[in-house]
Amino acid sequence: MSYSKTTKGLLDAASVRPGDRIRITSGSVVVEGLLLPRIELGDTAALTLKLDNGYNIGLRPDSDSTVERMDRRQELEQFPTRDFPRRDDLPAISLIATGGTIASRVSYRTGAVHMLMKPEEVFYSVPELADVVTFRNVLSPFTIASEDMTFREYQQLAEAVASELNDGALGAVLTHGTDTLHYTAAALSFMLRDLRKPVCLVGAQRSADRGSFDGPINLVCASRIAATSDIAGVTLVMHGESDDSYCLVTRGTKVRKLHTSRRDAFRPVNAPPIAKAWPDGRIEVLDNAYIKRDDATTVTADTAMEEKVALLKVCPNQDPGILHHYIDKGFRGIVVEATGLGHVPTQTLNKEKSWLPAIERARDEGIIVCFAPQCMYGRLDPYVYENARLMLERGVTFLEDMLPETAYIKLAWVLGHTSDVAEAQRMMLDNIAGEVSPGSDPATFRY
Amino acid sequence: MSYSKTTKGLLDAASVRPGDRIRITSGSVVVEGLLLPRIELGDTAALTLKLDNGYNIGLRPDSDSTVERMDRRQELEQFPTRDFPRRDDLPAISLIATGGTIASRVSYRTGAVHMLMKPEEVFYSVPELADVVTFRNVLSPFTIASEDMTFREYQQLAEAVASELNDGALGAVLTHGTDTLHYTAAALSFMLRDLRKPVCLVGAQRSADRGSFDGPINLVCASRIAATSDIAGVTLVMHGESDDSYCLVTRGTKVRKLHTSRRDAFRPVNAPPIAKAWPDGRIEVLDNAYIKRDDATTVTADTAMEEKVALLKVCPNQDPGILHHYIDKGFRGIVVEATGLGHVPTQTLNKEKSWLPAIERARDEGIIVCFAPQCMYGRLDPYVYENARLMLERGVTFLEDMLPETAYIKLAWVLGHTSDVAEAQRMMLDNIAGEVSPGSDPATFRY
Repeated sequence: MSYSKTTKGLLDAASVRPGDRIRITSGSVVVEGLLLPRIELGDTAALTLKLDNGYNIGLRPDSDSTVERMDRRQELEQFPTRDFPRRDDLPAISLIATGGTIASRVSYRTGAVHMLMKPEEVFYSVPELADVVTFRNVLSPFTIASEDMTFREYQQLAEAVASELNDGALGAVLTHGTDTLHYTAAALSFMLRDLRKPVCLVGAQRSADRGSFDGPINLVCASRIAATSDIAGVTLVMHGESDDSYCLVTRGTKVRKLHTSRRDAFRPVNAPPIAKAWPDGRIEVLDNAYIKRDDATTVTADTAMEEKVALLKVCPNQDPGILHHYIDKGFRGIVVEATGLGHVPTQTLNKEKSWLPAIERARDEGIIVCFAPQCMYGRLDPYVYENARLMLERGVTFLEDMLPETAYIKLAWVLGHTSDVAEAQRMMLDNIAGEVSPGSDPATFRY
Repeated sequence: MSYSKTTKGLLDAASVRPGDRIRITSGSVVVEGLLLPRIELGDTAALTLKLDNGYNIGLRPDSDSTVERMDRRQELEQFPTRDFPRRDDLPAISLIATGGTIASRVSYRTGAVHMLMKPEEVFYSVPELADVVTFRNVLSPFTIASEDMTFREYQQLAEAVASELNDGALGAVLTHGTDTLHYTAAALSFMLRDLRKPVCLVGAQRSADRGSFDGPINLVCASRIAATSDIAGVTLVMHGESDDSYCLVTRGTKVRKLHTSRRDAFRPVNAPPIAKAWPDGRIEVLDNAYIKRDDATTVTADTAMEEKVALLKVCPNQDPGILHHYIDKGFRGIVVEATGLGHVPTQTLNKEKSWLPAIERARDEGIIVCFAPQCMYGRLDPYVYENARLMLERGVTFLEDMLPETAYIKLAWVLGHTSDVAEAQRMMLDNIAGEVSPGSDPATFRY
């Protein structure tokens, strides 16, 4: 996709290409900056300039606007950086940067988004952060897209967070890609035992080159929560609305990415948000049932994870061979996204499509099978329909209102800690990190 | 779970058990009927009576209420039925009943929910239907829970619907379990070619024994849409709100069950609802872009489906062996619920966790791999991040804003019609039954 006819005409007339310094005049408004490359999403008439103060703005020139090229293309493959001086008058937290859109920019050569390798490059895009907190330490153990995360990275992150908090950081902010941000949040929620300080995960849906970059507000709100709030535990701090108004602080085990591109894509599921947070430091607590800060408590990184765990979404006509595959491969636990109140094909007219024999084989071989709701919202109930009771009788664990993504991470963590089937089943139903709601609040279904 | 202390006390004092005829007096209100068994969900203080007119009501006695047992337990394992006389003054549609909660009641022996075997039993619960439409034919090709549906049942349903419509029915109403109602809706959307009459799928979230039974309004609204509206095509007609106010008419390819138990669980995704429908016959069209009725057109049931198709949700740390499993087993197509804008593990630090080699093997062996959004809301875009471009270069088809459930059904249908890879990929991106939205309307993300 390229620019609209009007915008393209203005740029072509001035022989402007991305990376050039340009001046746009529309009536009495004159703006000068570096033209950033157009990326695929969004308004084709709009162009994005990086201003000299580091901010980006989006502009929509019309046919009466003029464009002048002020300078040739700058070789910006080396992204500008900004150092963060330690300031003793500000609360000290730690920043752990892992990659993702919040630490990305568009390549001036290819037009593709690339990841920044240094936290100093991230700071360049969010200058206002310097007046909010100071960083006692900035770590970047690896820089990868969040879809490339594995349990090994979760373990590194948990170790790093625990070490920083026990060394005196008031809280930790972790920048991360958004694709699997909620899986990482769940992993840290289970791994960080006796956590009594804030650990805020934060990402961005739009990269630092775009006028709609959402990283600054997310980072500022997350840093404030980590530095000064009493909201202990692992939370996500992301846009609450499409506008740059406030962020939602959500429980790390009760949140999901629900939109591919919107800035307010992360929504709590089966739980209210803990709080709204504004960039100016205001906090409105919406659900007071969070663990309160206690800076004297030592956190432990308890990171053992079982690799042989699967998440499996059931659908009609599905070959139960998929269960036999996991059993054959030595998997120890399977979370099934079951339909409705907790069902899989059980009494199919075509007997080959029934999952009953495979479920019985899993039970006989000591493999934990858990059901979580494919519907996402709401709670399972194995006592209403016969198909579910048949599963219950065969040892399936029904995970109440736990999100399937959280259940997958939890099962890997639980099986990293016990090889006893009954103990593992019991732990799966224990509410370890807010992953099971005590009741169902209809207001958490927001339509 | 049993009744609350007060309610249990009242029932025990009168030696009342489910199935008994009782009279409850609360102040000046006196109600008499059969006590239905308590089921698991809902208010523990409430009990449900079936009145002599066939309706159920929920009551919440307090400590000042009195309960008298009027008659001994009735043996109601034979559920009462109601015949529907043909009436020439009402529009004639066809009813196809398949089972599910809308056709279920609680067993008086076990307390479990059982399915009704005869449509006449369903009519008993919805007497008002007799004044709305007449049924030229009532079919019940099978009675199963929706999680037990397979492609074979979809084919039977499509054949039955096409036959009824071509024989003169003004429309068809299909009663169905809710667990996989949206998968069946997608299957019929692709199978019924040149469909120019309404085919309305309808279910219930609460069974006919409960005061909160939602079947009547859903059935009445669906019957009205099928009989008298110009909304051709396959739609779901289900509660729009938790209250008994109106139903939403949603496109069969753009809807999903989003809550395990709420009556308004079915929500349109990435599309507006087509209309609101009230039980009194009022219709408010919200999106006029539907196919209009044309009673003269003949519908064709084009039902070939490929069995060897999988739906697969990706998650961090997932073993790519799952892809090799499907390739080894001769699967011809795989829909992956990819994260974010369309990603799977690609550049993992631990190379064994990368899906790249398995994706390349699938391509080399002529297996169609399609990505659909795990986020559910929003659209994929393979041009923003390198991980997605690497997949695009390896022949992965990015399915825009198609729901994964719809994509799975569509891929099975497409591969039932062609063995040519390029043709199948092209068909997957064709908008055959409203499964791809032309643009993204932010208002369809409702938070």
